Amino acid sequence: MKGGGFSFQLLREEAGKGRLGRVATPHGQFTTPAFMPVGSQGTVKALAPADLHEVGTEIILCNAYHLYLRPGIEVIREAGGLHRFMGWSGPLLTDSGGFQIVSMSGLREIESEGVRFRSHLDGSLHFLTPEKVVEIQEGLGSDIMMVLDDCPPYPASLAEAKEAVALTTQWAKRSRDARHADGQALFGIVQGGDHVELRQQSAEELMEIGFDGYAIGGLSLGEAKAVTFETAAQVTALLPTTSPRYLMGMGTPEDIVRGVQVGVDMFDCVLPTRGARTGLLFTRRGQLNIKHACYSADTAPVDADCGCYTCCNFSRAYLRHLFLARELLAYRLNAVHNLFYYHTLMRTIHQALADETMDQFVREFFSRRGENITEAEGGETLC
Amino acid sequence: MKGGGFSFQLLREEAGKGRLGRVATPHGQFTTPAFMPVGSQGTVKALAPADLHEVGTEIILCNAYHLYLRPGIEVIREAGGLHRFMGWSGPLLTDSGGFQIVSMSGLREIESEGVRFRSHLDGSLHFLTPEKVVEIQEGLGSDIMMVLDDCPPYPASLAEAKEAVALTTQWAKRSRDARHADGQALFGIVQGGDHVELRQQSAEELMEIGFDGYAIGGLSLGEAKAVTFETAAQVTALLPTTSPRYLMGMGTPEDIVRGVQVGVDMFDCVLPTRGARTGLLFTRRGQLNIKHACYSADTAPVDADCGCYTCCNFSRAYLRHLFLARELLAYRLNAVHNLFYYHTLMRTIHQALADETMDQFVREFFSRRGENITEAEGGETLC
Repeated sequence: MKGGGFSFQLLREEAGKGRLGRVATPHGQFTTPAFMPVGSQGTVKALAPADLHEVGTEIILCNAYHLYLRPGIEVIREAGGLHRFMGWSGPLLTDSGGFQIVSMSGLREIESEGVRFRSHLDGSLHFLTPEKVVEIQEGLGSDIMMVLDDCPPYPASLAEAKEAVALTTQWAKRSRDARHADGQALFGIVQGGDHVELRQQSAEELMEIGFDGYAIGGLSLGEAKAVTFETAAQVTALLPTTSPRYLMGMGTPEDIVRGVQVGVDMFDCVLPTRGARTGLLFTRRGQLNIKHACYSADTAPVDADCGCYTCCNFSRAYLRHLFLARELLAYRLNAVHNLFYYHTLMRTIHQALADETMDQFVREFFSRRGENITEAEGGETLC
Repeated sequence: MKGGGFSFQLLREEAGKGRLGRVATPHGQFTTPAFMPVGSQGTVKALAPADLHEVGTEIILCNAYHLYLRPGIEVIREAGGLHRFMGWSGPLLTDSGGFQIVSMSGLREIESEGVRFRSHLDGSLHFLTPEKVVEIQEGLGSDIMMVLDDCPPYPASLAEAKEAVALTTQWAKRSRDARHADGQALFGIVQGGDHVELRQQSAEELMEIGFDGYAIGGLSLGEAKAVTFETAAQVTALLPTTSPRYLMGMGTPEDIVRGVQVGVDMFDCVLPTRGARTGLLFTRRGQLNIKHACYSADTAPVDADCGCYTCCNFSRAYLRHLFLARELLAYRLNAVHNLFYYHTLMRTIHQALADETMDQFVREFFSRRGENITEAEGGETLC
């Protein structure tokens, strides 16, 4: 540990534009709004820690559910914690697994005591309680722990959503009581679907218990985008300005800009690393898929203005060749580019917030993506 | 190009111990004996050029057959040649594809004019002549080109081997005549199976034509190891001391040490990179397979004396976890370690040749691998 506990400093805030802040953790600081690459199984897919530092990653997310099932918490505890196990010395957030138990497990029975589920790996039966999930994350030694929550599938009826909020609050209280160490922060998770009054109730009950930060869960599950950001805006308006807010599982570059505007400080999403494995690459003018034949002899980099290792050294033609040949290097070079894109976006947002030029940034960001790419910039196409 | 053509300087030679040398190419120099990682499709599997520099790679091998079929020579020519296409600025040897046509193609018809085969990718029909294969490699811009040879499967009868030698000589002559540029070196390939008199005939005919270097082909196809090295020794004894000798497709660390002893200067093999993908890791005391349960909570690095990125940052337990979880990072970290091991072995050999301590090195090398690993060094096991 680099010493010191968890703290959040709000540097600048303008309603409807966003918040600039700084989070300190036992393993170093990160600037908010922050994007956290996803390393569910203790590795951000296809990347080594050295790459993450190079692309500008400040904090990563791992998943307690995955690591509990494999390799098991004891292995990681014996290795000296998750940071040492995976060779990542910076800030690290662990998700509780509430969402994964819903989305990946064959069986899922929620009782007031906890949740019973089958491992997606071998079908073995497991029972996790809020206390156990805190214990697991304390074993992992993450800088930010998430409470176990009840995240119902979308759409949920009012009754289902109500029940989920009640249980999430109970579990949040028990999680808070179960925590031993002060160094590791604990975030609560606001549930309530798209029911305004339930979101309000959930947020208030969590604030009553008191957490180091607050996540907005149960979004990006299939609801309309307008609902997503309306709900996120309603929740952030209720939360204390002095704590970081984390919008779970989002999103596209556009989602992130909209999320910043409604007052979100932290984001995570598999999109840049999953996209790397399907050939989806991000550029300032939109996305391209490197599989397309139009790139077969294209000697330009993915994005001529990008400073990442991939764009500085390789052409679209080479990346397409690697991808079609299913060469392992394809996934890594793509992931390096995509995460560099995401982190550059975050740094641009930080600058715009610091300079109070967010309106201009947002206008340009969206207009750039809407422009006719074929005609712009010498007829270069994005396929 | 870094300027200058191809040359070989023999620095030291001791019969039965090995040769220390230096090869200069238009893209830089490399010390011999050299190990060339295999990057058949224009990428050493799972590694970026930056990794190759870091593990100590001085020259890599790519395959004209694979690159001709995909992405096609025109794409690479337009990109400015293979070096620029794949971002590798150092020396580069391209194999002609003679062996791949035998081992990968569904159909293979050898005529005196050339070889007709079906692509292993899409079944399309192709006809390659010795001239065309030189043209392909000139398009790729490799520093060392290999002639198209006739490499019969093992075991070959005396009649088959005789015919293969005759055709290989004819084709070698045509390849030599087809070459345009002086900057790119061209190596002949000695065939003849395990028939001493044919090997001698093949070597003499190739020397008569005259090449920048000589490869020993048609070995490591299933014959006994004693035959391999006896044949290699017979051939190197015939070849000019002033040209590099390349033993194609070999081998294990033990093979390389034996090959050096019989006067070989260059080696290539998929073993370190293929092993990376099957969990096979090399250490000074032998090989281990990272899959094994004995490593599940092993916090030691693969090899405590190894200075590679993998051993400096990650435990066997973590590598095993990545491998079992089929995480892409597994293949890369394993490949980094294995190639670092191979290149360290080569550097140790260079030193032993320079110091005239090769006998001692060889004795220690083999005794170390034979020792009872379980009892040695604190009972640590290699599974």
